[in-house]
Order: sequence, then C-alpha cells, then structure tokens
Amino acid sequence: MGKILTFGEIIMRLSPPGNRTMKQSHEMEFFFGGTELNVASSLAIMGCEVKHVSSVSDDFVGESALSFVKSVGIDTNFISKNEHPLGLYFLEVGSAVRASRIAYNRLNGSFANIQPEEIDWEQALEGCDYFHWTGISPGISEAAYEALKKGLEIAREMGIEITTDPAYRSNLWKYGKKGNEVLKELVSLSTIFIGGTNEINEILGTQFSSDKDGFMEACEELKKQCPSIHKIFDKIRIGVTASSQQTQGRALVNGNYFETELLEVNPVVDRIGTGDAFAAGLIYGLQNFNDEKALNFANAACAIKHTILGDINYSSAEDILEVMGGNSGGRIKR
Amino acid sequence: MGKILTFGEIIMRLSPPGNRTMKQSHEMEFFFGGTELNVASSLAIMGCEVKHVSSVSDDFVGESALSFVKSVGIDTNFISKNEHPLGLYFLEVGSAVRASRIAYNRLNGSFANIQPEEIDWEQALEGCDYFHWTGISPGISEAAYEALKKGLEIAREMGIEITTDPAYRSNLWKYGKKGNEVLKELVSLSTIFIGGTNEINEILGTQFSSDKDGFMEACEELKKQCPSIHKIFDKIRIGVTASSQQTQGRALVNGNYFETELLEVNPVVDRIGTGDAFAAGLIYGLQNFNDEKALNFANAACAIKHTILGDINYSSAEDILEVMGGNSGGRIKR
Amino acid sequence: MGKILTFGEIIMRLSPPGNRTMKQSHEMEFFFGGTELNVASSLAIMGCEVKHVSSVSDDFVGESALSFVKSVGIDTNFISKNEHPLGLYFLEVGSAVRASRIAYNRLNGSFANIQPEEIDWEQALEGCDYFHWTGISPGISEAAYEALKKGLEIAREMGIEITTDPAYRSNLWKYGKKGNEVLKELVSLSTIFIGGTNEINEILGTQFSSDKDGFMEACEELKKQCPSIHKIFDKIRIGVTASSQQTQGRALVNGNYFETELLEVNPVVDRIGTGDAFAAGLIYGLQNFNDEKALNFANAACAIKHTILGDINYSSAEDILEVMGGNSGGRIKR
Amino acid sequence: MGKILTFGEIIMRLSPPGNRTMKQSHEMEFFFGGTELNVASSLAIMGCEVKHVSSVSDDFVGESALSFVKSVGIDTNFISKNEHPLGLYFLEVGSAVRASRIAYNRLNGSFANIQPEEIDWEQALEGCDYFHWTGISPGISEAAYEALKKGLEIAREMGIEITTDPAYRSNLWKYGKKGNEVLKELVSLSTIFIGGTNEINEILGTQFSSDKDGFMEACEELKKQCPSIHKIFDKIRIGVTASSQQTQGRALVNGNYFETELLEVNPVVDRIGTGDAFAAGLIYGLQNFNDEKALNFANAACAIKHTILGDINYSSAEDILEVMGGNSGGRIKR
Amino acid sequence: MGKILTFGEIIMRLSPPGNRTMKQSHEMEFFFGGTELNVASSLAIMGCEVKHVSSVSDDFVGESALSFVKSVGIDTNFISKNEHPLGLYFLEVGSAVRASRIAYNRLNGSFANIQPEEIDWEQALEGCDYFHWTGISPGISEAAYEALKKGLEIAREMGIEITTDPAYRSNLWKYGKKGNEVLKELVSLSTIFIGGTNEINEILGTQFSSDKDGFMEACEELKKQCPSIHKIFDKIRIGVTASSQQTQGRALVNGNYFETELLEVNPVVDRIGTGDAFAAGLIYGLQNFNDEKALNFANAACAIKHTILGDINYSSAEDILEVMGGNSGGRIKR
Amino acid sequence: MGKILTFGEIIMRLSPPGNRTMKQSHEMEFFFGGTELNVASSLAIMGCEVKHVSSVSDDFVGESALSFVKSVGIDTNFISKNEHPLGLYFLEVGSAVRASRIAYNRLNGSFANIQPEEIDWEQALEGCDYFHWTGISPGISEAAYEALKKGLEIAREMGIEITTDPAYRSNLWKYGKKGNEVLKELVSLSTIFIGGTNEINEILGTQFSSDKDGFMEACEELKKQCPSIHKIFDKIRIGVTASSQQTQGRALVNGNYFETELLEVNPVVDRIGTGDAFAAGLIYGLQNFNDEKALNFANAACAIKHTILGDINYSSAEDILEVMGGNSGGRIKR
Repeated sequence: MGKILTFGEIIMRLSPPGNRTMKQSHEMEFFFGGTELNVASSLAIMGCEVKHVSSVSDDFVGESALSFVKSVGIDTNFISKNEHPLGLYFLEVGSAVRASRIAYNRLNGSFANIQPEEIDWEQALEGCDYFHWTGISPGISEAAYEALKKGLEIAREMGIEITTDPAYRSNLWKYGKKGNEVLKELVSLSTIFIGGTNEINEILGTQFSSDKDGFMEACEELKKQCPSIHKIFDKIRIGVTASSQQTQGRALVNGNYFETELLEVNPVVDRIGTGDAFAAGLIYGLQNFNDEKALNFANAACAIKHTILGDINYSSAEDILEVMGGNSGGRIKR
Repeated sequence: MGKILTFGEIIMRLSPPGNRTMKQSHEMEFFFGGTELNVASSLAIMGCEVKHVSSVSDDFVGESALSFVKSVGIDTNFISKNEHPLGLYFLEVGSAVRASRIAYNRLNGSFANIQPEEIDWEQALEGCDYFHWTGISPGISEAAYEALKKGLEIAREMGIEITTDPAYRSNLWKYGKKGNEVLKELVSLSTIFIGGTNEINEILGTQFSSDKDGFMEACEELKKQCPSIHKIFDKIRIGVTASSQQTQGRALVNGNYFETELLEVNPVVDRIGTGDAFAAGLIYGLQNFNDEKALNFANAACAIKHTILGDINYSSAEDILEVMGGNSGGRIKR
Repeated sequence: MGKILTFGEIIMRLSPPGNRTMKQSHEMEFFFGGTELNVASSLAIMGCEVKHVSSVSDDFVGESALSFVKSVGIDTNFISKNEHPLGLYFLEVGSAVRASRIAYNRLNGSFANIQPEEIDWEQALEGCDYFHWTGISPGISEAAYEALKKGLEIAREMGIEITTDPAYRSNLWKYGKKGNEVLKELVSLSTIFIGGTNEINEILGTQFSSDKDGFMEACEELKKQCPSIHKIFDKIRIGVTASSQQTQGRALVNGNYFETELLEVNPVVDRIGTGDAFAAGLIYGLQNFNDEKALNFANAACAIKHTILGDINYSSAEDILEVMGGNSGGRIKR
Repeated sequence: MGKILTFGEIIMRLSPPGNRTMKQSHEMEFFFGGTELNVASSLAIMGCEVKHVSSVSDDFVGESALSFVKSVGIDTNFISKNEHPLGLYFLEVGSAVRASRIAYNRLNGSFANIQPEEIDWEQALEGCDYFHWTGISPGISEAAYEALKKGLEIAREMGIEITTDPAYRSNLWKYGKKGNEVLKELVSLSTIFIGGTNEINEILGTQFSSDKDGFMEACEELKKQCPSIHKIFDKIRIGVTASSQQTQGRALVNGNYFETELLEVNPVVDRIGTGDAFAAGLIYGLQNFNDEKALNFANAACAIKHTILGDINYSSAEDILEVMGGNSGGRIKR
Repeated sequence: MGKILTFGEIIMRLSPPGNRTMKQSHEMEFFFGGTELNVASSLAIMGCEVKHVSSVSDDFVGESALSFVKSVGIDTNFISKNEHPLGLYFLEVGSAVRASRIAYNRLNGSFANIQPEEIDWEQALEGCDYFHWTGISPGISEAAYEALKKGLEIAREMGIEITTDPAYRSNLWKYGKKGNEVLKELVSLSTIFIGGTNEINEILGTQFSSDKDGFMEACEELKKQCPSIHKIFDKIRIGVTASSQQTQGRALVNGNYFETELLEVNPVVDRIGTGDAFAAGLIYGLQNFNDEKALNFANAACAIKHTILGDINYSSAEDILEVMGGNSGGRIKR
Repeated sequence: MGKILTFGEIIMRLSPPGNRTMKQSHEMEFFFGGTELNVASSLAIMGCEVKHVSSVSDDFVGESALSFVKSVGIDTNFISKNEHPLGLYFLEVGSAVRASRIAYNRLNGSFANIQPEEIDWEQALEGCDYFHWTGISPGISEAAYEALKKGLEIAREMGIEITTDPAYRSNLWKYGKKGNEVLKELVSLSTIFIGGTNEINEILGTQFSSDKDGFMEACEELKKQCPSIHKIFDKIRIGVTASSQQTQGRALVNGNYFETELLEVNPVVDRIGTGDAFAAGLIYGLQNFNDEKALNFANAACAIKHTILGDINYSSAEDILEVMGGNSGGRIKR
C-alpha cells in the first residue's frame, strides 16, 4: 500500500459523558483528533504507512497527544513541539431534537504557532504517494497557511497526488486572510477534490444548486477554474436528528457521474470525524479499488464511523467491506 | 421578564447509571429536582427571576440541595431547614419494552414537615407576577397542604396569576385528606389550569372522554365549577415505548380551541420532568408571546427536555425556539 | 413451582463501557453468566428452586462468581473448585451497522477441567423436575462432555424432563469429537428440544428450509431419529441492526404448529443471553401455563432481556406478563 | 461451626466517591450494611451458618438489599417486607484532619416499622448457638425494641448464648423510651457483653474511668447489676486522624484480665463497621479458640476491616489469622 | 459580616482521576477555581457577602463556570463575557516522591482579554469592606493589570481595606511588563500584605533570609517602601512529600511578632488552593477575631483545605474552628 | 543511546478500582504489562530504541495490546499473533495490613504458545546492545523456554550484553522442567545479573545469608559457577505495609561492593513493576553513567514507580534524576 502524508492540528476533544451537559458534569471524556489526523489514523489502522506533520505543546498534554498518535501506528518524526498550549475543543453531545454544541480553544495553540520554516518538506514527502489537507488548517493562522502552502508546492513538484476536503468554517479565518481566496489558491495546487456544491460555491463564489445537475455544473466550473483537479468526490449527509443520520456519496470522474446507495445509521454514537472517515476511505479505496468501488467504500467508512466514539474510525478495511456488502450488524462476531 | 414564585419539595433522585438495574450497580447518579423546582429552574435558566419556597434537611444533604438551587440562579431566601431528612426517590431507567420504575422515600422528609406558620408569604410574594403549584405538594402531608393553601389565598388577594398542574398521584394522599376534594379546593384558588380530561375527571369526578370534544366539554365544566380558571392548556404525551415518545399541546382559551403539531423524540434520554418543562415553557411563553405561540413553545420545551438527563430542562429560550422552528438537531452548533 | 437443575460453565464477561472499543478504554465492566447459568438465574429470579452444577477457579475470581450465583438465589452446593482459571470472554458492543465482537478464553478453564467422577448426580438430581443443558458445554472439553452425558443418563433413568438448546458453535469442538455426532447422541437423551431448522440440520446433517413447512418437516425428522423428543419450540430472531431486533417463537407439539406475534425491541441494550431468557421463559411457562401461552411467555422473556445489561434476565414473571400483554414500556411504574 | 442469629436493620450507605464532598459530586457509591448485618456477613463469609431477622422495603430497593444479603450466604427466610422505604444514610468520607460525616434517614423506614408479632422467633432460633444484637436496634423505634425484646426472651429460654454490643447513640431514641433504661433491661437478658467503660457508664449511669482499673471495676459492677453477663470484651480504638487508627482489645473473663497488642492501620480505607468486625471476630473466635485467642482474633479482624471499603469485613478467617500473626501486608499473594 | 470584592480569573482545572498520568487516562475530572475566586468562594461558604469581578467565555463553558460561581453564593453581576475561551490548566497529581505537574492554557483566554473600561468599579465596590487581589492577575495580561490597577485606585479612595497575596510566578509576565515593578506598584496601593520573605525579596529586590529575624527585617523594609501596608501575615508550608505537608503562620502587626503551631496533614488530598484558603481564613478572621486568632484560623483553614478535592475550601467556619481546637478528624460526625 | 531487545509475555492486568475487592465491583481497570515489557517500556519512554519479541492473541484483545506497545514507542515488528488468548491476571489491591492478591490466567495463552522456530533472532538482534530477560518467561512453557534459549545463544555469539532478573516463581514451572536447573543454564548465557542472595540461592541451591557478607559470598559463588556474569546488582525492598515501602540497591562489580541510600515511598500507589523499573533504570544507567550512579538511578527509578498506577514506569530520566537528587515531590511543577 502507498504512503500518505497528512498535515494539520492535533486537537483534544473534551466532552461530558453520554448526553450530559457540562453543568451536570464533574468529569469529561477526552480524545485526540483533528480533521487531518482523523484521516491519517484511519489510513494507518487500515494498514497504510502514514506520516503526520504538525506541532504540539511541549508539556505532558503534548506528550499524551504524541503517545496517542504513535498508538495508531503513525510516524511522528515530523511533529514538532513549541511552548504554546495544545488546541482543544469542548463538545456537548446532543440527542434527537437537541443539537450537539462545540466550543473551541485553538486559535493561539501550538499548531497555530507552527514554524513554517522548520518543516523539512522534502524529507517528509519522500516516498509519499498522497498528501491530504483540509480547509481547516489554513483558517487557523497565517503560520499554518504558509506551512501548508509550502508543502503543497513542494508536493506538486514531486508529482504527489493531493487530496483536499476544503471545508470553509466561519468560526476560523480570524487572522486577516479571506477564506475563499486562500482555499481557491490551495485547491489550485491539488488534484482530487472531496466536496460538493456547497464547497465549490464557497470557494468560487458561485451559486450552483445541490441537485445532480447543479453538482455536475459546479464540478465543471471547478475544473475550469482549478484545472489540476481531475477527480471530484462528494459526500451527502442527511441529518434526520442528532441521533439518526443518512450518508451517500456521489462523484464526477472523467465526465462520468456515479453515486452510492443511501446508508442509514440509527442510533448515531458519534457524528464527529465522519467526513474524515469518508476521506480516508476514499484515499484507501483509490489505492485498492476502481473509482466507483472507492466511493462505495468511502461511504461505508463514513457510515460505520457514526457508530464509534471519538474522532477516529477504528475500523479495519474488512469491517468496512462488510458494511458495504450490506451486513447490518445484527449478528455477533464470535 | 416577570417574577415567579414556586412552592414544592426539593427531592433527590438516585438512579443506577444508564439502563442498569440496582442489583447490577454499586453506584448511583444523583440529581436534585421536584416537580415545582423543575419549573422554577427552567424559568430561571431562561432568564426569569424566580423564588422557590420549600424546606430542606439541616445536614450536608440539604446544603448540597441548596447549592444546586443557587447554581441555576433561584432565590433561596425562602427555603427553610429542619431536622427531617431530605425527600428522595430511586429510579431504575427502562428501555424499549421495559418500563422505568420509581421507589419513593418522601412522606416523612423535610418538606413533609415544613412549618406553615413560618413562611412569610407576603414578603415572598412581593413583586411576583406568577405563582406555580402542582398536585404533588398537597398530597405529601397536611403541613404541605396548609402551607400551600395559605400561600394561594394570599397570592389571590395580591392579584397574582396562579398556574397549576394539579396531577393526582395515587401513591400520595396517605395523611387523611381526599385528593380530589383538596385539589378542587386549590384549583378554585387558581387562574390557569395546565391539564386535560384526565386531570379534570379526577378533580371533578366526571367522565369526559379524551378526544377533542370531550376535552372541550371538560374544560367548560371545569370553568363552571372553578370560575377563577380562565385559561386551560393541556399536554398530550404518547409513550410509544420507554425509548420513544411523542408530545402535543392543546388549549381552550376564551372559547377558542387550538393545538400544536405532534413532536417526536427518539431516543428518549430522560422522561422525568418533561411535564414540568411544558409548564415552564408555558409560563415563559405567556409572558413573551401570544397564547398560541406560548403553547407551541411549551410543547417544544417538553420535547427537548426528553433529551436532557436529570429532572431539569437546561435549555435556553433560543434552544426551544429552534426546536419549535423545526430544527431537528441534525447539525452540530459550532 | 418445580425444581430445576442446570449444568454448564460460569463464565465472566468483560466489556469496555458503552460502545467503546477496547483500544479506547482503560476499564471494563464485568458480569458473570454462561448460557445455562443464564437460564438458571432467570428461573431463580422468577421464584423457582434451582441447582447449578459446575466448577470454578479456586481463587478470588471463582469466589466472586460464587457470590454472584448465590445473590440470585441459586443452590451452589454442586459447584466444585479447581486450580484452573475461570473461563471468560471479552465483548466489544456494536451499534447500528457495526456488529458486536467476542473473544473467548475458556478452553483451558476451570469448567473445561471439571472432574466428571466427582459429581454426585443422584444427589444433585434428587427432587428435580427439569434438567436443562445446551450444546455449548459438550463442545468445551471431553471432561465436560462426559460429565454431562453421565448426568443426562441418570436424569433419564429418574424420569426427569430434559430440555436442550443444542446450539452448535464452530469455535468450540477443538478437543477431538465431532459436534454433530455428540449433539445427536445427547439430544437422544432429551425430551424437549429448543431449536429450529438450523439446529436440526446441524445435528442430523439434513437440509430443511427455514420456512414453516421446512420447520415442520425438520421437526418430524428429528422426532423420528430422536424419539425421546416430544416437544419442539423454536425462537426466531431477526437482527435488523445491532441496535434493533425482532423476536418470534414457533412450536410443534403433538403435531400442532403454533407461533407467536413478532415483538420488536429498539434500541437493544444487550443482545447476550436473549436465547437463554427464551429457554428460561419456556421452562417457567411449561410449569405454569399451557404450551401456547408458555411459548408466548418465552418470547416476551426474550424480548425484555434485550433491554437489560449483562447476561441475565432480571425480570420477574409479572414483568414478562406485562410485555406479553402489550405494555410497551412507555409509562413509568411508580 | 455453630449457627448464629442476628437481628437488625439492613441499611443502605450512600457516599460520594473517594474523599469528595456531596456538593462536588454527581454520583454516589452505595453499599448495604447495618451494624448487626455487618456481624452476620462477616460470620457467613468465615463459613458460619447465619440467619438474619429484619424487614425491608417492598420495592426494587428492598429486592437489591436482599440480593446482597443472599450473596454473602446469609439465610434470608426471616426477612419480611413492608411498604415503608429502606433506611439509609449518607456519608462524606473525611481525611487526615477532616472528620467523616453521616446524615441518617432511618427513623421511618421499613425496619422501624417491623411487625413484632409477625416474627416466628421459635422457628428462627431453632438450632442457633448465638444471638447477636446491638444498642442501635432498640433505639430506632418501639416496634424494633419490642421485636428484639421478645426475641431475647425466647432465646434466653432456649439457652442460647446472647452477645451484645450495646452502643448508645444520642441521635436515636426519639420515640419516647430512655436509652439507658432500655439497654439495661436488654443487657440483663444477655450473656456476653462487648463494650467497655463508656458503654457501662451509659447503661448504669456510673462514672468509672477508662483505665485498666476503672474498666475492671466497671465490669464487676455490670456483672452485679446484670448477673447473666459472664464475659466482657472491650475494643479500644485510638483515632489518630481520619486516616490513621490504632486498635486494641481487652477483656475480663472469670476475673481474669487480658489485653491484646496495639495494631496500627495507616491509611484507613474505611472506618465504618470496624466495631462490627470486632464483634464478628469475637463470636467466631469464641467458637474456635480460647477466650484470649478469640480476643486477639477479634482485634485483628477489626484492624483488617479498616482496609476494606464498605460496611462489611470480606476477610476470611485465614486472612485475619495472618494479620494476627504479624504479616503486615507488604508482600503480594500470588 | 462584611462584604468582600475579589478580582481575578475563573480558571478550569482538568486532571486525570486519582494519581493517573494523562497518558493512562481517557477522562478528566474538572473543577472551577482561580486563586482569587478560591478566596471568594471560601468566604461565601463561611457566610460572607462576596462579589467577584472577572470575564468568562461567551459559550457553554463560560456558562458552566458562572453556574459554579453562583452555586457557592457569590454575586456574579460583575462578571462579563467575551468571545475568548475560558482559561484552563491541566494537572497531573503526584504522590510521595513524585511531584504534581501543571500545564497552563490561560494567556489568551477570556480573562486575559477583559475590557478594563467596561468595569464599573464604583458600583462594584459600593458597600465593600475588603478588596482582595493576588500577583497572578496582573501577570496574565496588560488588560488584567490595568483593570486591577484602576480598581485598586478607586478602592483606595473609598477607604476599603485591600489585602494582597502578591505571589510572583515566572511562567506569567509574558506581555512586556516586569513582574517585580508592577507588583511593587500595586502593593503600594494595598493595606494588608499576605506573604513573607520570599515575596518581599521578589518585589523589592532584597535578599532577606527566611528565618524569624530575616522575616522581621523584610517586613520593616516593606513597610518603609510601601507605607500603606499596616499588617503582614505569612504562611509557611513545609512539603515533606507530595502526600504529606505541614503548615504554619506567622505575622508582624504593629511591631508584634506572633506565630502559630505547626499543623500536619497526611495524606494530602489536594494541595491546590491551600494558600487561598489561608487568605480567606485570614480575611474572615480579621473580621471576627483578633489578629492572633485570625492567623490561627487562617492556618487551620489552610490545613483543612489539603483534605478537600478541587481548588475550593468547602469548610464552614465551624469546621475550621474544630481543626484549630485540635480535633484531629479521628471521629465520625453523626 | 543504545538499542535494547526484550523478550517476554505481554500480559493484561485487570483490577477492581481503588482498594475494592472483586466482590464489591462491577468494573475493572485494565493495563498491559509483563515483566520484560515493563523494562522495555521504561527504556523507550526514557528515549532508548527498543524491540520487544513476543506473541499476542489474534483478536481485538491482542490488537489493543499492540496498540499500547506502539504508544510507548516500542518496535512491534517481532511480535507475532496466534489463536490462543492473551495471558492475563487479576489483582486485588491491598492496603496497610491487607496484602494484595493476584490470580493468573497465563499458562495456556498466546505467549505460552509462541512458536520458537518462527522468530528470526538474527534480524531481531541486529544492532542491539542489550538483551534483557527474566526468570518468568522460561517458567511459562517449554515453547517460551526454547525460544528464549535460542535467542540468548545467538545474542551471546553476537557479543551482546545480556541482563537478567532471574526471579524464580513457584506458581510457574508446571510444564515439566525444573526451575532452578533451567535458570542456571540460562544465567550461564548472560553477563549482568540483577538479583541478590535469594535469587542466587534458588539457582545454585546454596544457602547464603542476606546480609552484606552473605551477599558478597553468594556473588563470588555465582561468578564461579556462571563465569560469563561480570556484574551483579541487587535491589532490596522492605515492605513495611502494603502502603509503605522502602527500596535500596547494592552491587558487586569487579570485587567492589557499593550500595545506595534507602528511599522511602509512602503511600504506595502501585507496587507492581517496581523491580522492572529498577532493571530498566539500571540498563539506562549503565549506558549513561558509571556503575555506582547507575545503581542509584535504578533505585530512584524503583522508588518513583511505586507512585505510578499500572505496570509501567512513565517517568522520564529527568524525573528519576530529581528523585535521586533528593527532591521529595513536595512542590508542584508548573
């Protein structure tokens, strides 16, 4: 299997147990994650060689984060340390008609203060087949943006496949740059786009609709404006309630449109990181299957992640293939 | 916003974690609540000024109860202490086809032994716009009945709006008085009735049916026998299973009947206090909206409470308005 | 009520809390169970006199197991101790599309090393009306097989009713004997068969279908080859997902076919031991009701067990009768 | 080994985990105990046959209590049920300079409402060698006092050895009778006195000193006034801090004074039930050893109980003999 | 009793349970505290009227913090909200030879970003007798420094007693100002100094010794350079190990030196906030006792805080007086 | 720093929380460890490159074990999988006068069934400077013995330093070989002996005393009979109680005797793995310091491990050096 490099924040999630609100709690469960690390972890658990580039706090919190990253088998040699605290967020988990809530503490953390000039991208990218990034990282700080941009440029020169999930988040982008402009610049350095009408509209300032025709037109426009993009894969999530979700994938590759079945998950154990599970499933699938099967695999990975606590998809490729094959979980595996 | 006074027991809930039975447990989660305190808490959390009148044990258990009541912002100056233990109940939480069970220990507690003569109702009610009571309190003990009756009489004289949820519980009323007679007496001192056919039949000894016509006839009969009642709001709960519930509100105000949509909650996190959330939503709504919107707000408050552990509805008015607006909880609030 | 003897392993279940995977955990919940002990416990909880024959480890783990067995009121005088460790299994609980997983550690444990010659079957069986066994025990070790066979032969001579749930598990039968041959031999010593087409096909090497006709043909064939069998009761479980299950019972007694309603359980709290709850419900039912009501009772017992954590059905007969009567759990029992 | 009967409340202990105060907690650990049940449990765990006479609540709380009593192997056939709630107490565990605190809820519980006339003492006492009671039971309610007195009278007639730990507690005796008078009456029906100068002074209204001479004089006076007492055993506890305790025993038997070494326990895991462990150790010792060794055994039992959470001494006789032999716990038993 | 105003950060503490390291944990216990809030809370729990001036995050984390502050009875009307995250720290609790560790995340939080101009000091200080501040607040940010300075100036004009615990922490003071200069400036606005040789040396740049003579000389020098200081109280803590501590107080008031006994605490439950408990005890004592008794009270408050989990001293004045009186915690309070 | 290879079982520890007995628990904390893995982990945490050779179960339990081993940074490439269950043990943690207890389940596990012929020792040992083994591994099974022996022979040929802690455990050696004979054979292949009089007496069948002279004579005899041994380091532990321990080291190297100070740890958090912490400290010390300082470092490592939960010493070399330097843990590290 191929080697993958990911770049992004290692963030700590803190949440009261079960569906409790914070006011009702004296303790919090914690997990390490971060959108790109989630992709990295899922790929490593499925057996890929993965390097993650990041920066953590130089204290016992950062040490614990590194210990976690090692535990899933990711190469941590390109994770630096600095004196800023590890980024974190608080999560109150909703249920049924009550939405989950997140409160962030990340804009002045160790990743936001990464030193772009200290990353040896050539060495980090050596031997890599894929570089995965998301729209979160360049929204955190100028330093993160610059580090990422430099990495993408070098990866591009090295002919590495670059996948991106360019989600725009309005609670980022506080440091002065405009999200849509930066994202368009960085997508233009990438080759595989994981996103749909919403993401394209945000980046290009267009107003395509979400239906199939709108999606196809949006894809064509994206490829016109960012010609390095040669494949587009989209995940559709229908959030029935906080406890019941449906997932579906669709894609436009070489002018061909295809889509997956709708998978239903009820009850949802954890909604965080389900998009990252999709991305990891896709990257795994592209290396092992044809594009259509890769999309189905990605969609099944997204579905099964909804049943796993925390940010990470702990499923093996076999687990995901079973969900893809329609095994609904009703029998115990002894 | 207006000031509200509530009167009732502060009771402790003890339950094994999750769906465990007590036999399978070595620990219990505990919460403070009590039907009128639940109403008070929800109102305080939504920003109202609330005073609660009660009596707690003069030990560290009572101190903890007071600390909780303060934490939600309720005025505790009218809560006395005595040497009797705080009332409490045990709850085994059911699931699907298995019903929840409750075992009470409240009939000889600190609230049952409240001293009616020591309550300075004039001072407590000063500046209040609403007085809320339920049928639980007068069923606990003669002392509680007398304290409540005196308070209602004074409130009535002061022209305060009196809301009541006059639920009759057969496991109370052990001290000699007949529940229906007492409830009729106290409802006759009230102005807004929160209840429907069942409650009216219990109080009046009538046999109206539960359908719309029966409800309207029952309301008319109630207003005839208790002429101070000028508005009647009813909550209908359809318990599909212990894990899935539906809620709806209906009302008769000035001869006008109106009802809300049916809201579904699945899975149910906690069924306790959902009626109290309805009452609090209604009292809040009556102060901020018209009667019909108030009923919709009450029904949404009832629905969202099903997703919150413990006896108290921790939702803000904004949270409830979102549920009312159809936001089903499928998206994370970041 | 009658006296029942059961024979089988007392096994410890260890599982991460909630839906966690083991990698995400630092602690495990544990329960004692074992397919025949589960039947014994449910019967004891419903008020029957029950003796369990087994062997546990001679250490504090075995002591804890005995303490549990005593706590449900089972006679432990025929449980011996030896120097081998108590059998155990690890369980990761799935959800929705993710299946649960089990990893066993039982093949060299204290039950596998039971001393057949040390069991005083005559004394143990004295006064018993029923002897219940399953296909798990003879699959664990030759010693367990021999102990069981001797017990069945003596019970048969004493005219005791012998019920069997002869499930064949492919992860057992490592000690040299063929599962189907042994099971046929032991079923030929039994009188009431709890199983359906699958179990009959496994034992007889036949290929009957699962539909009603196939079931009836299979039953006839079983009675031909194992003429001591005079009643056959089958449970059908439809596992929609890991979180949603449906149960149904059917039977062939004296040439009469009858079946129960389909009961639905959603969400499932615990799937383990639901078949054992069915068997216990059936044995209880056969002593207290006619065969058809016994089957309905067994099916309701199976349904309610899905809502109880651990291996044991803690329900009273009253609880089960309520489920049978259609009470769906939506109301709190105060 | 002999048969022992005990009579007393089965009480539930609820305490926040570790050294937390209740205000800092959302959960409580719970244990079942009660001073006489603690004695009964320790004796049963050491292999004696024990019957406990009591009354519990007729709800799932009472059922859980019974399940616990069965788990230690005590005969529960003489435990009745009534509609009053199970008695309970809350405990905040202190540490070092901070004392532990207890808040009771027991004066209107199921034991306080036991029906004296419904106890079949003749049957219960049949075959018993010892009857153990404490000063707690008659202090709870008149019903408990009457039940106990009747039992003692019948036991006396049957020639059963009657041990008593007649502790006077000022937070009891609310029902009208005077503690010292009742205790003197009941001690006069007993044969072995477990207590020292303090207890004798309370009962007789004397003012003997606590030193050796005072103790001996007090014993002589007690035997004069209550001539059925033929042996007196006293435990001395020196509470250095809430976390460090020292224990010692002394006795006067047939005019002979003897005392044990001082045993130190640091840190203390749980101070509750240490006196009951002493009493159980003594009763066990009197049946198996001479009086002096019995006292040493009782003192070691008291010491080791300080290291065990909850009200019950889970130690075997072997464990206690090791402590008596000077084994300080420094090595792991593999 | 008097009214007290405190100013400072409300900080969240997160720590793995017990003595676990973070790498060994999946959950953390959390508490709200902060050096000045700890003083405020202890005073409120002892019955004083307290206002706390601060700024918290405008999210559910800040809401939870406010809920805690209300629960102890502190007036929260002068606590503002802003869009920055609540400050927090992680704590790994040591034991015996292993020291505890702290990792901070506070320099860009909501308190660091407090708006000095938005605080209405005149209104906040109205009716106050005491204003308490520490050296932590001005070390966090320039905004916090400026807010505090303005408050002190106004308090001074209003003739309010100003107490200070001017601890210098090297991990603060990152924003440009020199700690010793700022602290000297602010101490010059204060009237009661809680600190000893170390603190004086840090502020004045002197090198007095820690013994009695050095302490007295240092005090004289401080009063010379900061003439508004009229009383100096010092706490001495001797950390034998992470699990065993000794505390002592000494003072110089009007030229009179006095000191307290040495109190020992073993084992230590929680070392955090023990200095704040001393300060609160002192402020309470100064209002209720003479200076020498106040110092003894402060020292006992410090000692008992070591036995309480979290940052806050939950003891009542009675609890502290008992420790002062030599009650060592060895008996249970029933 | 040098590379170290370790060989031994990866064993799971399961224990009730705190000081609970198993009968009082429904959950267990679990940790991965194993005497040689403990040494490996401590060395990896201090920054050494470490390879561990072992075999785990081919199920999710084994996967979790591997995930843990990776998390501390150990190379897992030489850990195989087989169909046998992972070895495990249960631990009840004692306190003060109550000893801890262990119950094992390891003799038929995945390590006991390791395939000696499948280990590529040449590749595993490539580049290694140290090979560490203990007397546990060859006592588990013949397969483990043979695998180890082969590894030692090859290591010896490669000139690798071989350290051994040849503890003899009477609850092992069930497979037919005599412990003392095997240990003598394997010690004869080793170069550094970590043990003292007891271990030497067990291996050689001698009866030297434990005092200094006896130790020196025993060492001389060992070197005579096992001439490859050139250094001998001994740890002395004095178990005052289960909660208080003292540790000391002594050594004979090149005829020179030296010993360390006695370090005291009170309270003990965890006694398991303290000898392994000593061995790891020694191996680290021998690479970084002279022999005497190495012994001091080892003793300090042993002491600090007593304060850390679980089998592993999570301390950095800096932490250990602080303990060695007399820093007693009384101050918080911020």
